[in-house]
Amino acid sequence: MINWNNLDTLKSYDALKKVAKVNVAEVMTGESGAERVKKYSVPMAAGLSFNYAAKAVDGDVLEALKALAEEAQLSEKFEALYNGEVINTGEKRLVLHQLTRGQLGEDVTADGVNKREFYLNEQKRIAEFANKVHSGEIANAKGEKFTTVVQIGIGGSDLGPRAMYLALENWAKKTGNFKMEAKFISNVDPDDASAVLNSIDVEHSIFILVSKSGTTLETLTNESFVTDALKKAGLDQGKHMIAVTSQTSPLAKSDNYLEAFFMDDYIGGRYSSTSGVGGAVLSLAFGPDVFAQFLDGAAEEDKLAANKDVFANPAMLDALIGVYERNVLGYDSTAVLPYSQGLSRFPAHLQQLDMESNGKCVNRFGEPIDYVTGPIIFGEPGTNGQHSFYQLLHQGTDIIPLQFIGFRNSQLANDVVIQDSTSQQKLCANVAAQIVAFACGKKDENLNKNFKGGRPSSIIVGEELNPKSLGALLSHFENKVMFQGFVWNINSFDQEGVQLGKVLAKKVLAHETDGALAEYSKLLNI
Amino acid sequence: MINWNNLDTLKSYDALKKVAKVNVAEVMTGESGAERVKKYSVPMAAGLSFNYAAKAVDGDVLEALKALAEEAQLSEKFEALYNGEVINTGEKRLVLHQLTRGQLGEDVTADGVNKREFYLNEQKRIAEFANKVHSGEIANAKGEKFTTVVQIGIGGSDLGPRAMYLALENWAKKTGNFKMEAKFISNVDPDDASAVLNSIDVEHSIFILVSKSGTTLETLTNESFVTDALKKAGLDQGKHMIAVTSQTSPLAKSDNYLEAFFMDDYIGGRYSSTSGVGGAVLSLAFGPDVFAQFLDGAAEEDKLAANKDVFANPAMLDALIGVYERNVLGYDSTAVLPYSQGLSRFPAHLQQLDMESNGKCVNRFGEPIDYVTGPIIFGEPGTNGQHSFYQLLHQGTDIIPLQFIGFRNSQLANDVVIQDSTSQQKLCANVAAQIVAFACGKKDENLNKNFKGGRPSSIIVGEELNPKSLGALLSHFENKVMFQGFVWNINSFDQEGVQLGKVLAKKVLAHETDGALAEYSKLLNI
Repeated sequence: MINWNNLDTLKSYDALKKVAKVNVAEVMTGESGAERVKKYSVPMAAGLSFNYAAKAVDGDVLEALKALAEEAQLSEKFEALYNGEVINTGEKRLVLHQLTRGQLGEDVTADGVNKREFYLNEQKRIAEFANKVHSGEIANAKGEKFTTVVQIGIGGSDLGPRAMYLALENWAKKTGNFKMEAKFISNVDPDDASAVLNSIDVEHSIFILVSKSGTTLETLTNESFVTDALKKAGLDQGKHMIAVTSQTSPLAKSDNYLEAFFMDDYIGGRYSSTSGVGGAVLSLAFGPDVFAQFLDGAAEEDKLAANKDVFANPAMLDALIGVYERNVLGYDSTAVLPYSQGLSRFPAHLQQLDMESNGKCVNRFGEPIDYVTGPIIFGEPGTNGQHSFYQLLHQGTDIIPLQFIGFRNSQLANDVVIQDSTSQQKLCANVAAQIVAFACGKKDENLNKNFKGGRPSSIIVGEELNPKSLGALLSHFENKVMFQGFVWNINSFDQEGVQLGKVLAKKVLAHETDGALAEYSKLLNI
Repeated sequence: MINWNNLDTLKSYDALKKVAKVNVAEVMTGESGAERVKKYSVPMAAGLSFNYAAKAVDGDVLEALKALAEEAQLSEKFEALYNGEVINTGEKRLVLHQLTRGQLGEDVTADGVNKREFYLNEQKRIAEFANKVHSGEIANAKGEKFTTVVQIGIGGSDLGPRAMYLALENWAKKTGNFKMEAKFISNVDPDDASAVLNSIDVEHSIFILVSKSGTTLETLTNESFVTDALKKAGLDQGKHMIAVTSQTSPLAKSDNYLEAFFMDDYIGGRYSSTSGVGGAVLSLAFGPDVFAQFLDGAAEEDKLAANKDVFANPAMLDALIGVYERNVLGYDSTAVLPYSQGLSRFPAHLQQLDMESNGKCVNRFGEPIDYVTGPIIFGEPGTNGQHSFYQLLHQGTDIIPLQFIGFRNSQLANDVVIQDSTSQQKLCANVAAQIVAFACGKKDENLNKNFKGGRPSSIIVGEELNPKSLGALLSHFENKVMFQGFVWNINSFDQEGVQLGKVLAKKVLAHETDGALAEYSKLLNI
């Protein structure tokens, strides 16, 4: 029996608030710090590990977090989710993105079909399609191979797939898995579509139109840009564009598309990178085998998230520490700092995943809650960020928890030795140095050069950023966000907050405005 | 006589805290909202305007802010700055970036030269150099024209110039001002340099090495990648690379560079886009005339910042409202939301500019302060962000002030009509709609669909994103950050917070570690 209770009704939450706070600078200094780095580590999939030594936790805090996980029934709730309960209460939908990469529990039947089989079948269809494109069996009107794939989508149909593509582009080039360049059109700003179309050879491009509902205004508008460009080039859209959509959308049966691949209402946009939304573009860019490895990494990490032992469940542990920082220690934001150029857009994807899922102020029953929920998520790759906003992280007036990500090896394995070390060594030395600098600080009589320390961080470390570790990384954060939603008793799977803006924008375009909206419309010359 | 006093010693600050708070949802609804949009607007340079109707201000708050500006002597402090006082107290340096684009006050002499003349002379040298590259007078060993320019730099030598390049790339292509493609190498991650070098034709590339000190480790390491690539291609670095540095740096007199252009210690990295740091790459990419227009826009906006009437000084007003939000209303962060794909990296530049300048917890004399300073800055272009993190902005538990930017026209002027409106109209309709949605909200009995409103925002509106308006935009934010630093009585022009990480990274590379740092080094296999 699962109880969906607000966080502030839980006894374990009260108890957690009373546990003595940990002085990060103190415990991370000297031998105690070394011991913590060795001890506070959990294995993840694909050779990754989650190290939380520099977080403001100790045995007592961790035991209190474990009690919270148990009272909040995090494992039971995840089990209910993957066994097909209606977890998305607002929209009355199942939440099945984990099924796109594996099956953790019972068969889930919805809309009269076995959902795992449905997702697998779409994957297979996409793989066959991609193979035919790569072999030239599916080609342009002149029988020439496609060389570029362009994804048209926004939000979940853009940020995740784009971040994953960028994360694997160099790896694929190095390992001989690079099949086609991918480009992305998302913004309704006409300059976005125009610039991408100016930069490609339309005749050798295949386009993927991605919209679950088939009604996303930005995406349909951007389709028109492509339609026009194809027409101008004397090309047939039906030979150059495929759709990824739901079976009930207007796109599903249109003749405008060479092929349509399906997702459904049980996969939220921001959780769709492992569905056809990420599958089509990644399979075309890198081949279906690479996409399969990506799914394997995610599936393995999902299994760890199903582990009932919180200390062997990195996503749950990360989630609990995050809640502790947000609700007990009072930190409002988290910086995501990957020391890997390939992850340049990974923070933007996590920003969407986290803030759209948990930026809520009512519980899953639509009742007001009296505690803070999802933090602000922002970040840029290191070492770039070190020369930018790290000043505030080190010496600003607010404490901002940090999520580092690092890999022992680079993707392209091309390096130079300067001052007795490679670039990769410098990169890794910097992430190690930053964790300790943030945690321990350094006293200086000149307060301008003083570092208070006490800035908590964790790090996910791996051998290399490749399809499998990327899949594991993605799954980790998806599950972390899910567990935090469970703790906060909110629905992490709807996004009603995006609706009002859409309604008002339509009014502006229909010139049905008054008051401030009419004046802003004038100001912007609409 | 200027008094540098802490914010919490000012009477006007106490008075400000006591002024009745404005209910944004209330005042922005109905006729009152329309009136505010018309009234709360200040002209900026280059046809821009700063509209703060949706901020939590009214006549009383504005009067109190004006009193704060006067007591904090913001105009006098800016005057002292541009007349050459040592404003950067930590490093005992003048702050002269405004002189790279104009002269607001007296002649400033330092290091025995007139600084305005020095900067102008470097600009002229860069312009002549760029013209020779474009004409082919300066060419590769085979006498062929260079087609690509690659900037090697990090932090201030990367983010600003890169954001400005991306902001003008499409405009330049449309208007016939596009001379060369620009690429950027910044991260010490070897994958960054490798990927850029793999993507270019080295034989037809000219490289700009940017480091004020000539000792930035990332930049020197990345130079080596380029040196190797040039050697492998049988090319002479002395014909392919220029330096932008200070006259005292080791790069200044090296034979490794075709030419060296100079900046100095009075221009902080994050304020260097209008110096040679931005000048070389932008003049090569778009021509010196375009760079000159960019400087004109910044100079015009600087003049407005020198205006002693706060209501005709958009940067000062914006700064004061920001301080009110941070210190009185208690909001911790600001989202920067440009509705222009060209400004895709502008938020990342502002993140550096603001967080590195004002992320400080001691005053300009190195004494502790007892109030919060610089906020977290993050953002992505709209409408993309609407499908990502806006959920939290609308319905999250924290209020996050918003800085919108919008233009009435697109850059490429290529558009389609769908559902009776162009993409550009949809883009502008969305920004208008979002401002009102955030401000006014919308009641719904289903709390999950309820919007509380009361989310304050301002918008900078312009005709078009072009060199002049971009220069004005950049200057606005540089001056806003400066004024906020004055209010907080901090030094916005040093960055001691980046030092400790550097020191510890060197220890890691020298294997001089113990405790946690030694363990993290092992974990990362250094």
